[in-house]
Amino acid sequence: MKQSPGVVDLLGVLAYAELSAYARMTEDAATLAPSLADRAALSELAVAEYAHFRLLRDKLTELGADPDEAMAPFAAALDAWHAQTRPADWLQALVKTYVGDGIANDFYREVARHLDPVVAKLVDEVLVDEGRSQFAVERVRAGIEADPAAGARLALWARRLVGEALSQAQQVAAARPELALSLVEASGGQADISRLFATLTEEHNKRMAALGI
Amino acid sequence: MKQSPGVVDLLGVLAYAELSAYARMTEDAATLAPSLADRAALSELAVAEYAHFRLLRDKLTELGADPDEAMAPFAAALDAWHAQTRPADWLQALVKTYVGDGIANDFYREVARHLDPVVAKLVDEVLVDEGRSQFAVERVRAGIEADPAAGARLALWARRLVGEALSQAQQVAAARPELALSLVEASGGQADISRLFATLTEEHNKRMAALGI
Repeated sequence: MKQSPGVVDLLGVLAYAELSAYARMTEDAATLAPSLADRAALSELAVAEYAHFRLLRDKLTELGADPDEAMAPFAAALDAWHAQTRPADWLQALVKTYVGDGIANDFYREVARHLDPVVAKLVDEVLVDEGRSQFAVERVRAGIEADPAAGARLALWARRLVGEALSQAQQVAAARPELALSLVEASGGQADISRLFATLTEEHNKRMAALGI
Repeated sequence: MKQSPGVVDLLGVLAYAELSAYARMTEDAATLAPSLADRAALSELAVAEYAHFRLLRDKLTELGADPDEAMAPFAAALDAWHAQTRPADWLQALVKTYVGDGIANDFYREVARHLDPVVAKLVDEVLVDEGRSQFAVERVRAGIEADPAAGARLALWARRLVGEALSQAQQVAAARPELALSLVEASGGQADISRLFATLTEEHNKRMAALGI
């Protein structure tokens, strides 16, 4: 079964995103968590990301694609994003998980919707929230309550996360113009791209409000 | 239900060992694996360690112990062991997983046997091999075949792993004399301690032979 390159690209970038999120969250948990219970709680979310990676890799194999080849074009951009956004403390790590992954997941979900219903269903499944929001929101709000100055710093941090994500996304689009083009075509042209960005912005603002920053 | 401190100590050290092995293997996979397939294969083993951590933590809770308190006394020694034995390349990472965790697991299994049959069963369950041996042995042997000089370097590395493990174990014993004492008593005295070390050495030598180093 031969799939459109758009589907393989989407599953490939998403698989690598999950694999690298798993590694990064594991490291943040081990190095930044203020208690063993917090460390276990963030590790639990990391392991869930790994399970998503497994689903996506198996789907790629099922579609006749080589998972490593499908992921490879996106590894450098996603690694660069993690290198540019290494959290300095526990609250930054939580905001990264919630805000950074949140906007990326909204993007993947919107793209999948335009591509193929079966793939869209799988993508929805792997992007399920799994308590990440509640975990991050509760702890970040408590952190800001204990130290009100942290709120302004975390708001800046969240803006930087989004800026770096856009910069990496532009580099992927420049390196793979056919992917960018198929996205524009699949979504019905320029007007829908504008709507996509409006949706992403709106959801992002909701998350910022939930954090109280 | 109040358990003997020996049982809580053993489950505590083992839980932290699994939690830290999971984090370390995840990092080694992300930074040292030569391919995405190898990275996924080692990550798979790391995630299995996390599942073992979960079992041990739940058992501690079931026994009425606080998992964080049970793990805390051992965190510094196990963190120090990982810091002292940070692998420099992929083959060192595999040897660490196979030889280092191998000798530690033999030790935990022997201790558990003397403590309590129910706990011994759980410990046997979490220390199941899960393909780690085959994965490491195959890749290390292939690595040495491709570069025979690697064999001697890895043999030195394995010796260092064991040396650092003994040094950390001694520090734990010095910091928690009642644990060391209960181990000696549970195992029937000094003669059995000698037999324990003979068993550990024998199993270690078998692993070195399997790697061809």
